[in-house]
Amino acid sequence: MVSVAKGIENETLMRPTQVIAQVLGDSSRLSWGVASCNSPLAAMSGPNIAAELARYLPATAVAASGDAAFARRVQSVFSTQWFRVYTNADVIGVELAGAMKNVIAIAAGIIDGLAAGNNAKSALVTRGLVEITRLGVAMGAQAETFKGLAGLGDLITTCVSPEGRNRMVGERIGKGRKLGDVLETMDSVAEGVPTTRSVRELARRHNVEMPITEAVYAVLFEDRDVLAALSDLMTRDPKSEIQ
Amino acid sequence: MVSVAKGIENETLMRPTQVIAQVLGDSSRLSWGVASCNSPLAAMSGPNIAAELARYLPATAVAASGDAAFARRVQSVFSTQWFRVYTNADVIGVELAGAMKNVIAIAAGIIDGLAAGNNAKSALVTRGLVEITRLGVAMGAQAETFKGLAGLGDLITTCVSPEGRNRMVGERIGKGRKLGDVLETMDSVAEGVPTTRSVRELARRHNVEMPITEAVYAVLFEDRDVLAALSDLMTRDPKSEIQ
Repeated sequence: MVSVAKGIENETLMRPTQVIAQVLGDSSRLSWGVASCNSPLAAMSGPNIAAELARYLPATAVAASGDAAFARRVQSVFSTQWFRVYTNADVIGVELAGAMKNVIAIAAGIIDGLAAGNNAKSALVTRGLVEITRLGVAMGAQAETFKGLAGLGDLITTCVSPEGRNRMVGERIGKGRKLGDVLETMDSVAEGVPTTRSVRELARRHNVEMPITEAVYAVLFEDRDVLAALSDLMTRDPKSEIQ
Repeated sequence: MVSVAKGIENETLMRPTQVIAQVLGDSSRLSWGVASCNSPLAAMSGPNIAAELARYLPATAVAASGDAAFARRVQSVFSTQWFRVYTNADVIGVELAGAMKNVIAIAAGIIDGLAAGNNAKSALVTRGLVEITRLGVAMGAQAETFKGLAGLGDLITTCVSPEGRNRMVGERIGKGRKLGDVLETMDSVAEGVPTTRSVRELARRHNVEMPITEAVYAVLFEDRDVLAALSDLMTRDPKSEIQ
């Protein structure tokens, strides 16, 4: 079984392969997302805007499984001349990156809505990757995964592509609209909105500092003014870049 | 003295602060880019499109110096409400990242010229960061620097912003024009073109694999067909993402 879903359940804080394993009734897989021999489990993720895949434009993805042979099998089944699949053993990192990047995409959309420019947006993506990596590592993911296609690659596409739903929610909020109004007028799901709740909760549980996620949460759910939230991020104490 | 120049000299393969130190006549600084007490040297770099800075849009940068006190002084002099400066001790990494990212930006422009989409471009930026980090580390830089604002941050801006000169050169080549024609009609310098020669030479000297840089070199200087070069990149042997 190959999961291509992205998100973190609000109530249980479970990843998609954990949900699948639970539904399949094997609780031994819950904590590590690795399948048994008779039903191997993988997560596929990467910079994969569906509309581009449907036009056969070149793309890449990651097939992650704790079962290396199954990861290679998924790689071989999905690889084509225009679709390049890499294997990865880090199911936790691939799934967390795919979910958490949607929170950063909402922030990127807010930058777009404010017309704050590409300098600001690139800084946001860079610092966003730092904070989602920090939480991922605290939860058992490999930092390397966040530098790869399912991390950085997917993050860039989601923050840059005009058609991204999460970025679009952010853009409308950046232009001054309220979350309820924005969601009412959309005919598809912006999974980054509920994911923001899950990521903030995980950050608190793991005691990880995530200033961008906190700012997105405050704007979405606490009616924080977007300009004030951006200004907070820009005027934190000056720091060394590397902690 | 604060260097804001980006590039690698073709003949000497020196970084800007090395050139400055040489011109100032202190050969002891050549190999490590750190200044003596009476003339400290720093390199500033980051996602800083000039047109956006001139409009006071929010931006971030890195002030790098082997002299930590001087780095903090540069940070404090340049920091404003809308311009956030981080310090970094890795002058080599900050300068190499700022130069090498222009080669990847040409490749990103080629993707744009081919209308190959954001999935492909995000993958290119992700794999591009991997290969410039690899060369940087082989030359004594810190891998962390490449994950930061002067690395990833600047790379994203340069690959995404329509006004980027290096990206624009790539876009025109991706649309089928020849390098000579493209450069003739530009009224500003696309430093990524000569930098491609320097980076390829450095990759050979340090025995580092840089498939994207090699592809850009082949397209720019060996008349390699752009579609063939892209296809080469997409059909390399399937791999694990993390080496």
